[in-house]
Amino acid sequence: MELLKRRILQDGIVKDGNILKVDSFLNHQIDIDLLNEIGKEYKRRFANENITKILTIEASGIGIACIVAQYFNVPVVFAKKAKSANIDGNELYTSLVNSFTYKKEYNITVSKKYITADDNVLIIDDFLAQGNALLGLLDVVNQAGATTTGIGIIIEKGMQDGGNIIRSKGYNLQSLAVVDSMSTETGILFR
Amino acid sequence: MELLKRRILQDGIVKDGNILKVDSFLNHQIDIDLLNEIGKEYKRRFANENITKILTIEASGIGIACIVAQYFNVPVVFAKKAKSANIDGNELYTSLVNSFTYKKEYNITVSKKYITADDNVLIIDDFLAQGNALLGLLDVVNQAGATTTGIGIIIEKGMQDGGNIIRSKGYNLQSLAVVDSMSTETGILFR
Repeated sequence: MELLKRRILQDGIVKDGNILKVDSFLNHQIDIDLLNEIGKEYKRRFANENITKILTIEASGIGIACIVAQYFNVPVVFAKKAKSANIDGNELYTSLVNSFTYKKEYNITVSKKYITADDNVLIIDDFLAQGNALLGLLDVVNQAGATTTGIGIIIEKGMQDGGNIIRSKGYNLQSLAVVDSMSTETGILFR
Repeated sequence: MELLKRRILQDGIVKDGNILKVDSFLNHQIDIDLLNEIGKEYKRRFANENITKILTIEASGIGIACIVAQYFNVPVVFAKKAKSANIDGNELYTSLVNSFTYKKEYNITVSKKYITADDNVLIIDDFLAQGNALLGLLDVVNQAGATTTGIGIIIEKGMQDGGNIIRSKGYNLQSLAVVDSMSTETGILFR
């Protein structure tokens, strides 16, 4: 998606340790006009699919998923990272995720009421690196007996293994920008 | 907002301990059509204000803020609850919040780049109870030298102190539904 790649080149900041900061437009401050263009792009890419639900994970996936959902006329469900006092523990799908960004393990939880065997799920998230959060979401969809119809990622870090792992499992993974290399010296190169 | 109150009566679940679960349409599964009606309502209530930015807090505020932002044509900024490896610690506004739901203290952080003295801020969040998260967001706006033009809350728990504290400070607080009492026996009563 050229608009997105231009924006990453313009406003993305490469930091040591394979970090790409896009918090001026995607995951701290959010450019809603850009998200609407992203929603149109996903609708084009998944035009022939009968999607019934969009699944994402807190926190930075939620805004993207909500804007994208407007183009599919379906509800959003977001997986939670911490067990709140407001959730019934025995009515949850849970999956253990190992976070690259936060350098710790955590459980994600989704209420069994909101993903069912009848659902065709589009999974949305901002980043795909090692793919651990995404594998947790796929695990939740599988536990529900639902179908993962597609996966929409905004930025895939192509030099890490997540994309290959997910594609090798046969999923329809649509990453809008795949970064094949980045460094503070050479900048960002897209696939 | 009658549509919202009817939805709370229809799908909200009252639990012991002053808990109102609205996770079927607001903060786990999200009804995007309802959020768009909420966006129109806030636009009507803040029609004469020159809002330049919407500020919320992760996680469940983000989806609401993003849909609402479409009616004001402004970016969203969401305060983060945990310090990520991807944030520069010396470039942040921070404020300490005491959470009712999670029964612990945490710092919220906002990059100094995304709220500035020129901003007229609309703060959006799903719930207002004791008001601690909201006081943290107001503290961030004050640290930035920006103006809090308004506060939009979806559900205010009127039997707790937050609403009175915020109104006594002179803020334009617009709660779309104020719950004055609730119990598993008598159900939900609105103000």
